[in-house]
Amino acid sequence: MSSTATHDLDAIATAAAAAAEPFAATDPRARAAAIVAIADALAGAADELVAIAERETGLSEARLRGELNRTCVQLRLFADTVVDGSYLDVRIDQADPGFVLGPRPDVRRYLIPLGPVLNFAASNFPFAFSVAGGDTAAALAAGCPVIVKGHSGHPELSARTAQIVAEVLDAAGMPHGVFQLISGQREGATMLKDPRVKAGSFTGSIAAGRMLADIAAARPAPIPFFGELGSVNPVFVTQAALDERGTGIATGLVASVAGSAGQLCTKPGFVFVPAGHGLDAVIADAAASVPEHRMLNQRIAAGFVERRSAILAAPGVRAVAAGAVRIDDDGHGWATPSIVAVSLADLIAGRDELLDECFGPLSILVEYEEGTDLAAVVPTLFEGNLTATVHAGDTEDTAALRALVRVLTGHAGRVLFGGWPTGVAVTPAMQHGGPWPATTNDSSTSVGTAAIGRFLRPVAYQGAAEHLLPEPLRSANPWNVPQRLAPMGESDGWGAASR
Amino acid sequence: MSSTATHDLDAIATAAAAAAEPFAATDPRARAAAIVAIADALAGAADELVAIAERETGLSEARLRGELNRTCVQLRLFADTVVDGSYLDVRIDQADPGFVLGPRPDVRRYLIPLGPVLNFAASNFPFAFSVAGGDTAAALAAGCPVIVKGHSGHPELSARTAQIVAEVLDAAGMPHGVFQLISGQREGATMLKDPRVKAGSFTGSIAAGRMLADIAAARPAPIPFFGELGSVNPVFVTQAALDERGTGIATGLVASVAGSAGQLCTKPGFVFVPAGHGLDAVIADAAASVPEHRMLNQRIAAGFVERRSAILAAPGVRAVAAGAVRIDDDGHGWATPSIVAVSLADLIAGRDELLDECFGPLSILVEYEEGTDLAAVVPTLFEGNLTATVHAGDTEDTAALRALVRVLTGHAGRVLFGGWPTGVAVTPAMQHGGPWPATTNDSSTSVGTAAIGRFLRPVAYQGAAEHLLPEPLRSANPWNVPQRLAPMGESDGWGAASR
Repeated sequence: MSSTATHDLDAIATAAAAAAEPFAATDPRARAAAIVAIADALAGAADELVAIAERETGLSEARLRGELNRTCVQLRLFADTVVDGSYLDVRIDQADPGFVLGPRPDVRRYLIPLGPVLNFAASNFPFAFSVAGGDTAAALAAGCPVIVKGHSGHPELSARTAQIVAEVLDAAGMPHGVFQLISGQREGATMLKDPRVKAGSFTGSIAAGRMLADIAAARPAPIPFFGELGSVNPVFVTQAALDERGTGIATGLVASVAGSAGQLCTKPGFVFVPAGHGLDAVIADAAASVPEHRMLNQRIAAGFVERRSAILAAPGVRAVAAGAVRIDDDGHGWATPSIVAVSLADLIAGRDELLDECFGPLSILVEYEEGTDLAAVVPTLFEGNLTATVHAGDTEDTAALRALVRVLTGHAGRVLFGGWPTGVAVTPAMQHGGPWPATTNDSSTSVGTAAIGRFLRPVAYQGAAEHLLPEPLRSANPWNVPQRLAPMGESDGWGAASR
Repeated sequence: MSSTATHDLDAIATAAAAAAEPFAATDPRARAAAIVAIADALAGAADELVAIAERETGLSEARLRGELNRTCVQLRLFADTVVDGSYLDVRIDQADPGFVLGPRPDVRRYLIPLGPVLNFAASNFPFAFSVAGGDTAAALAAGCPVIVKGHSGHPELSARTAQIVAEVLDAAGMPHGVFQLISGQREGATMLKDPRVKAGSFTGSIAAGRMLADIAAARPAPIPFFGELGSVNPVFVTQAALDERGTGIATGLVASVAGSAGQLCTKPGFVFVPAGHGLDAVIADAAASVPEHRMLNQRIAAGFVERRSAILAAPGVRAVAAGAVRIDDDGHGWATPSIVAVSLADLIAGRDELLDECFGPLSILVEYEEGTDLAAVVPTLFEGNLTATVHAGDTEDTAALRALVRVLTGHAGRVLFGGWPTGVAVTPAMQHGGPWPATTNDSSTSVGTAAIGRFLRPVAYQGAAEHLLPEPLRSANPWNVPQRLAPMGESDGWGAASR
């Protein structure tokens, strides 16, 4: 995939800007049908797409078929979100001559699309966080033209996916310029500075995400930038959980770390377990049965080799399952899971070496002594994370556990009880985000239907005649969307609910 | 009001951070009752507070009493918002073994407070956008501790208001540190950099707002910053509206520009009227009856003198009502309204001189020729605005009018039909925001109950036992908040709505 030429970038921004108003004005059923048609077309091309993806990424066929299915389901879910219309957050204040602050006009508010969105695709999800992935689905659902900066790790897949998406949208009668692909890192940064781009989204490293977030914030007219960056996803296993199901936790951990060679933003990087847990043999056995997995690209493989070596060499670190990583003659990296252990004291002493994210199949058991105040430890070790997980006893309910949950809530976008953070459900209640550096903007999610809110802004109409109102705000409600009414005559009761 | 000492800043941030968790955990009825108690206490101190405000700001007693009443109503409305609980956006996905992507866990999502909010008070609304104003009400309602950087224009009022608010919150049993006042420009910037501050809000100039937004974005851990900055609030009068009610529009304009000496962010700065409108005499008469009004402070008065002189001296500008401004022996500015007129062609030619906001009682009539494509003109003249207003004929419905409304929607947070943008209703549907430079972040509003959303972030709990869930997410729903359910077994129908 060669980088997009400068004059093409300008033409692409022009086309996206021209598409913004007509696309925003599309009937929701037509827009939803176009999004479903994308899902149908991608599913129809599954054999071809998965074969390209397998070759370009080294991910397994089973994983890629599952990911493509998830991508299609995601598109359908957003299509339903568009038709449902509750995402528009329609609010109608009836005119009220007796309003407590004097006569109140008729005011109607809803959310409108921001305009062209620039979406930087990820390396590690060639379908679900790439050209036709969640950010694209959310932005199209919101009614925003999309420009995808394809990831260099899967250029052929990006081009072919983009071709399918563009053809489907064209056949569905959506405006020209509503979906376009660009390539090149510098070209992505250039496009992010273009005044016609109104929002950015990104999935990738802290360094790249911060650079792009800074660009978005420094523009003459700043724009929102939703970057999903790094996360180490700490897990906390209590003594009660260890006693009840230690073996299951150990094998679950290895499966979670091994999947997709650990190249997931939700991979559990640190697992706090009671010292003397006795799980070494189970973990080593489980890890030994994991076949070698190819890594996504040379940069990621090289980074993993380096981080893994540094962690293994750090003071107090013990290899529970050493695992291995090698670079083959074609330059591909191949890895098996490494699970290491360190005492909490040595983790604290070695924090500069140990605490950074290690992208790949490695996890650190952190062995803590009985009576350790985990709730107090968390803020000293971790910044924001996408997830935090607690494995507690089935009926466990202590002050320490509650304190830990409270602290984790302050540090993560999703708190799990049992289970593992990898495998993110695409649902209305999912939250995939979290405080910095998990994201550049933790007001939203990048997985699940709530993601549509990132690409919308509110606008109110005051005193408008019915025929000049957009459909969702009309009293006749032709789109049949939920409308929240503030009726005339209610202001006398304000403050009453709280007395 | 002397600037806050550095060691005090540290103690204040420490207290706010310590208050964050207990305040977030308060029962909604207790938090709402505390907010209502603030309203009651401020209303009870009205005579004292209004007298101080009159002296410090030069605003009229009637205006200040109205503003204080608005401030109290605003607090009550937010109290009801807290108890209602729909702002929490609770979403519950039932566990679903038959989910289309494989077994789905129980996931529950809601919005939690961000933590300490730093609110920079405005000069021009000493109650409603100041110490106990909308930003403070929204942040307290959200469950965030508040630090207000008081405005130097009304120091005594700021201190007295803060004392009342702090005493009420203390008496209501809210945590120590939940509300604090600081002063000093440099001290405000220092506090904005403090890692314990989790969000900022601001009402003021583009220059100051941009500086602060840049600080918030450049922090090691960036935070959201909601600045409400400049706006020129264009108004468009069609020939039909002129024919139907030209005189009413002219007198309405003068009243809107004269109120509070035009020192409002929603003052109509540009009024597009058909050339040959014949309104000069009506406007001049109406303006002549407006008494001299003191301006807020010397800086604003000096800025108005300078901008007004430059506008009056610009090529093609005609004084319809010249108005006057003088500085008295105490350094106070006093002004009467200036309404000037210029042809659209001269406005375009003189844009560098004419287009910037003029803060004070001045408005520019822009005279356009019949057949002018106003929808095409708007994007060449205006960036984002808080408001845009259309005065059309009662039954007017032309392609040109619809195109103008569409374009204005893209440039403003609120589009009015008839009426004037000054006087912003505090209601659920109000939108007070808009694209840059109207705000630094147009995802939200700074007036109306939707403002609570600025100080919240989503978090999801996966697989949690009922007793470990926060109250709003429990199936038993002890707080009786709206819960949106994604039931088990629905995933088969996805994409169906759009077919």
